[in-house]
Amino acid sequence: MKTFAYLGPEGTFTEAALQRVPEARGADHVPLGSVITALNQVRSGEVDAAVVPIENSVEGGVTATLDAIASGDELHIVREVLVPISFVLVGRPDGPQSLPELHSVATHTHAWAQVRIWAEANIPNAAFVQAASTAAGAHGLLDASSTYDAAVCAPHLARHLGLPILAEGIEDTPDAVTRFVVVAKAGSLPEPTGSDKTSVVVPLPEDRPGALGQIMDQFSTRGVNLTRIESRPTGESLGTYFFSIDLEGHLVEERVSAALAALYRMIPGVRFLGSYPGAEHHDYTIPEYTTDEAYQRGRAWVRSILDR
Amino acid sequence: MKTFAYLGPEGTFTEAALQRVPEARGADHVPLGSVITALNQVRSGEVDAAVVPIENSVEGGVTATLDAIASGDELHIVREVLVPISFVLVGRPDGPQSLPELHSVATHTHAWAQVRIWAEANIPNAAFVQAASTAAGAHGLLDASSTYDAAVCAPHLARHLGLPILAEGIEDTPDAVTRFVVVAKAGSLPEPTGSDKTSVVVPLPEDRPGALGQIMDQFSTRGVNLTRIESRPTGESLGTYFFSIDLEGHLVEERVSAALAALYRMIPGVRFLGSYPGAEHHDYTIPEYTTDEAYQRGRAWVRSILDR
Amino acid sequence: MKTFAYLGPEGTFTEAALQRVPEARGADHVPLGSVITALNQVRSGEVDAAVVPIENSVEGGVTATLDAIASGDELHIVREVLVPISFVLVGRPDGPQSLPELHSVATHTHAWAQVRIWAEANIPNAAFVQAASTAAGAHGLLDASSTYDAAVCAPHLARHLGLPILAEGIEDTPDAVTRFVVVAKAGSLPEPTGSDKTSVVVPLPEDRPGALGQIMDQFSTRGVNLTRIESRPTGESLGTYFFSIDLEGHLVEERVSAALAALYRMIPGVRFLGSYPGAEHHDYTIPEYTTDEAYQRGRAWVRSILDR
Amino acid sequence: MKTFAYLGPEGTFTEAALQRVPEARGADHVPLGSVITALNQVRSGEVDAAVVPIENSVEGGVTATLDAIASGDELHIVREVLVPISFVLVGRPDGPQSLPELHSVATHTHAWAQVRIWAEANIPNAAFVQAASTAAGAHGLLDASSTYDAAVCAPHLARHLGLPILAEGIEDTPDAVTRFVVVAKAGSLPEPTGSDKTSVVVPLPEDRPGALGQIMDQFSTRGVNLTRIESRPTGESLGTYFFSIDLEGHLVEERVSAALAALYRMIPGVRFLGSYPGAEHHDYTIPEYTTDEAYQRGRAWVRSILDR
Repeated sequence: MKTFAYLGPEGTFTEAALQRVPEARGADHVPLGSVITALNQVRSGEVDAAVVPIENSVEGGVTATLDAIASGDELHIVREVLVPISFVLVGRPDGPQSLPELHSVATHTHAWAQVRIWAEANIPNAAFVQAASTAAGAHGLLDASSTYDAAVCAPHLARHLGLPILAEGIEDTPDAVTRFVVVAKAGSLPEPTGSDKTSVVVPLPEDRPGALGQIMDQFSTRGVNLTRIESRPTGESLGTYFFSIDLEGHLVEERVSAALAALYRMIPGVRFLGSYPGAEHHDYTIPEYTTDEAYQRGRAWVRSILDR
Repeated sequence: MKTFAYLGPEGTFTEAALQRVPEARGADHVPLGSVITALNQVRSGEVDAAVVPIENSVEGGVTATLDAIASGDELHIVREVLVPISFVLVGRPDGPQSLPELHSVATHTHAWAQVRIWAEANIPNAAFVQAASTAAGAHGLLDASSTYDAAVCAPHLARHLGLPILAEGIEDTPDAVTRFVVVAKAGSLPEPTGSDKTSVVVPLPEDRPGALGQIMDQFSTRGVNLTRIESRPTGESLGTYFFSIDLEGHLVEERVSAALAALYRMIPGVRFLGSYPGAEHHDYTIPEYTTDEAYQRGRAWVRSILDR
Repeated sequence: MKTFAYLGPEGTFTEAALQRVPEARGADHVPLGSVITALNQVRSGEVDAAVVPIENSVEGGVTATLDAIASGDELHIVREVLVPISFVLVGRPDGPQSLPELHSVATHTHAWAQVRIWAEANIPNAAFVQAASTAAGAHGLLDASSTYDAAVCAPHLARHLGLPILAEGIEDTPDAVTRFVVVAKAGSLPEPTGSDKTSVVVPLPEDRPGALGQIMDQFSTRGVNLTRIESRPTGESLGTYFFSIDLEGHLVEERVSAALAALYRMIPGVRFLGSYPGAEHHDYTIPEYTTDEAYQRGRAWVRSILDR
Repeated sequence: MKTFAYLGPEGTFTEAALQRVPEARGADHVPLGSVITALNQVRSGEVDAAVVPIENSVEGGVTATLDAIASGDELHIVREVLVPISFVLVGRPDGPQSLPELHSVATHTHAWAQVRIWAEANIPNAAFVQAASTAAGAHGLLDASSTYDAAVCAPHLARHLGLPILAEGIEDTPDAVTRFVVVAKAGSLPEPTGSDKTSVVVPLPEDRPGALGQIMDQFSTRGVNLTRIESRPTGESLGTYFFSIDLEGHLVEERVSAALAALYRMIPGVRFLGSYPGAEHHDYTIPEYTTDEAYQRGRAWVRSILDR
């Protein structure tokens, strides 16, 4: 049986992401305390894969995720998962059950930021109590050592813990989703599906005008669309940056492999983080001159001249 | 007297950043519970300015900072501050004082990630307890309701609270720094210093190949160097992105104002977040053909033809 | 009364071009022996303007035209003229009048190249005799010192000289046209018409990868379309090049003046050769973000931040 | 024995170019009346190769050369030759021998343009008589049917014809050279020499902003330097252009073949005109990331991921 780690505790949005991974059905699910621990257990073989947040999440720990995947033994992203972000307000089983009675609400800072407008309108007098995670805030309601009246958490955690739900759908942005990835040991690439993403991390040797532009040009001249780009300090020494890039396409596509080979030629430290099915099925259109068939035609033409 | 808010509680790295802001000497310093609250108090006039983390910090809350500055009434960044990141391990005044005796250590997830190698080597058997912030973890040591033996926090907080220091300089990356900004109401721009940065946020209308390249070209053709770029989902609807960009230079420089005017022509939703002194004094070199004097020469030449 | 010089002799296609210039109606028309002489007479004030071929013509002298305009005292192109290229075969008044009887045909090399297919099909046995111009070849038919039977020339010259026309419309490419320009002393620019061209000559200081690309980028980032580009050796020293460029638009348009000012900043030796009505009325479309109105909006936005 | 055609008559600069072609030593040299005839004889197999002017020459016929190579059955350029351009003034064997006595001087328009300053200073009263070529002008001095006193021609023609030399080195630009190419049937490519050029002709489907830029980008992203670029009307229909491009490098180099394959993918009508030794030995430097070895490294890296 396979084992999937995830950023716990139980009831987090990351667990909700794991529940959407087809390969994880029937597998062991192991909650772990940090993204780094989860990734290291993949590296050491203790678990087969890990689900970790990759983007603006309500549980934090996100900015470091790509760094952690890109450092140490090679790991590959094998799938991307989107989870709708919805919140409920839960109370103590034995505490006040109506909104006007609430004096304090615990949750993670990020979650609080996402229900702030609702809170100002509906529980203006309730104080915010910072919790280590949304799950930790909710668990505290079952615990006599804590003193707050309510918590903001994910709907499935509320159900899991059997906490009374005082209000539902309280998120300020109704259609918000957050993004997670499934990470495994570097090895067999997922098959291309026609709606894939590829992630790379590119150290930028110098901080000079045009360096980033040169990198971009390697993609645009090959019709490769970027869906995310982020420059980040490496932490090693001030002023040294790297770029984290997601692009549309799979490494088996010629335009993608040509662009990445070009990047590697320029910057040998580039790190491949995976080609994998994107969470949204999205039939991207690419310029006709960048299809595999076009690449083959181009090579055949050159060959016909050289071989004459 | 001026009032400066900061992301509290007392003893956080953000407070350390505030202590490095020349304008804040002798001002009132107000700790607040979240970046959003701090920014809103600037907007409402309750405080004159706020110091908030902008980058990979140990207290989290970072990814959302630029979003929060860019939403709602206009705010401007007026200064950037760097703080070296160093950690100490502190114990309970009345608890175990030697490393082998420690069973549990509380701190924020991000701080724990930054001392992990030290911890594995020196306190391999101590369990990690997630705290809402490094300061919250340290404060808990003075509090009978918590049960952990030690905490990881900033040196100045340890001194401030009078906690026993069990180990110093335990960070895995010795020269790490983190970046903070001082934010004030949009108004008078700081004077250019010759070592300035300008921040903008650019919504990207469509997600098509070349769109980002077109934006980059507006900078590179004017010799404007980008020091940070980040594409981020807007949260409003999946697949809509914006770019957050820092560039070298001040809006009063012609090459900068020309590039930003070009951006505005292409994307009227672009948002100016400020021109301000960079934290490191860094005499950037710009191509000779992009100095203000060169711009004046170029215009004079065109004028001489039109006026003949 | 105005005086217009043209590349003579009478009966050349350049004279046909001059007949299409509205400003030249009722003016004196002066045929001159070379493009350089014509341009020098404009410079010295002996004539008000000169009509000279600018492109692949049947009378040669073309490649040097732009060089000659760009060297010496400043001249400006004030109009562009297109002339359809059609040829007739003319004979001697007293010579053979049927095609099979012809033994030799005189004309300029370029004209011969343009009727070659017709000649091979219709007068396969007639030898080609090189003439200094199509007009010189035709004039020779009236002259006892020459011995050839026929000449290829412009229809209006045949009529002008009263030569017997043996065949008409013998050009191999039926819709060919050639391009001429009217050149005057640098001075008042023609008014913009909405269908204008601008010509510049750009010396390229070095011969390095990307230099040309940098120039191109100054145009493309401002939505300026190039309709002609040519790199040419300067003749001064081997390996030194300049670019001759025609673009869509008039110097009074902001996107054009901004692009040219940028070029001037990079390469102060750039030479402006004129903004003038294009021969074909062609409503070019420009990106919305490059209209004058867009430029004004961009500047106003920057101003609104600086002035706050 | 091999046969080389050239643009005649004997004594032209093109013949001088032919004399500099190593492969043509001991071969038959055939003067022909036009570039087109010379190229057609290569196509039909009547001659093995042809030497034709490619650049700003004193005998004209140049602008059309590349068009003529690029139309019809495929021909390849196999060598480039440079010839210094120097002129002598020659007189009639039985005519006036001192400069003040000269009343008229015959030569090709282009040659006249290149000695004009000398002529104005030394023979200000001599009239210019247009000749079909410099050689034709010189030959006429041996011919009673012409009436001019002198001619401007190449030094080797003066010697060949035994004409009295009245002045030497009369060219206004002392170090001028002109460029010729040796053209053969498409077939075995010349071996790379480390100082090669490649020529292509690229039809441009539409006349839109950025089209040319896109083509340029395919070269610049692969570190390929262009030494000549020319946009030219096709003649077929007004407003349809093609580009004629020379670049540094040989088709067997990966960066060159990759750039041309990309061009072919975008514009299947691109025409390869040859990879051949440049006339000047010029050790061009290319970016390290574009060497063949770098290309192999890039491919190997991609392969290592795909094959894992």
